[in-house]
Amino acid sequence: MSSVQVINLAQKFSLFNDHWKPRITGEINDSYVKIAKIKGEFVWHHHDHEDELFLVVKGKLLIRLQDQDLWLNEGEFVVIPRGVEHKPVAEEEVQILLLEPKTTLNTGNVQNERTVDAEWI
Amino acid sequence: MSSVQVINLAQKFSLFNDHWKPRITGEINDSYVKIAKIKGEFVWHHHDHEDELFLVVKGKLLIRLQDQDLWLNEGEFVVIPRGVEHKPVAEEEVQILLLEPKTTLNTGNVQNERTVDAEWI
Repeated sequence: MSSVQVINLAQKFSLFNDHWKPRITGEINDSYVKIAKIKGEFVWHHHDHEDELFLVVKGKLLIRLQDQDLWLNEGEFVVIPRGVEHKPVAEEEVQILLLEPKTTLNTGNVQNERTVDAEWI
Repeated sequence: MSSVQVINLAQKFSLFNDHWKPRITGEINDSYVKIAKIKGEFVWHHHDHEDELFLVVKGKLLIRLQDQDLWLNEGEFVVIPRGVEHKPVAEEEVQILLLEPKTTLNTGNVQNERTVDAEWI
């Protein structure tokens, strides 16, 4: 029996309700596939060495950059390049899929009370 | 103005109709985010050094492994680890999102008439 498993995103999202605490749902090469529920405003931060993908699974996400606001609806994604300051904002709860290197810290160059380790789910 | 762009998957899928020809919709670190429409059976192959993610955006996908069949519905993904023989099969057209290193060839260790270069869309 192979250990390859199909992951159902809706099922995984049903397992938790807290915000801003990404869970790991898969690994691919040097990266993790994470999911998170977010609501409210996150901190401004950047990642020095890593690009980061945000895919909106449910809801409407605002990612503020220093020179523009990016609005993402369901089925839309964006890659925030390394070094680019960004601030995710979710007026209502948003379900997102994240892809980022295993070394990535959620708050990037900032470490504060919002900094968390992601756990497998 | 930043060059960061929001990608709408449905809009990108609307731009082409051929099967088994992945298009690149984004890049993240050393990988491409690709989309493809597939229908019918692909060739058995594996990737020696690269894990590969399949996320079903629309339709129902079968990925045959040597020891099991994986069925993926919309909103489900699987990571096929490096070295694992697999054969995607789509009875009806399926829209998939792929994530794989930039160096990945669609047919992996096999090179034949199904081998194609992915282009940006």
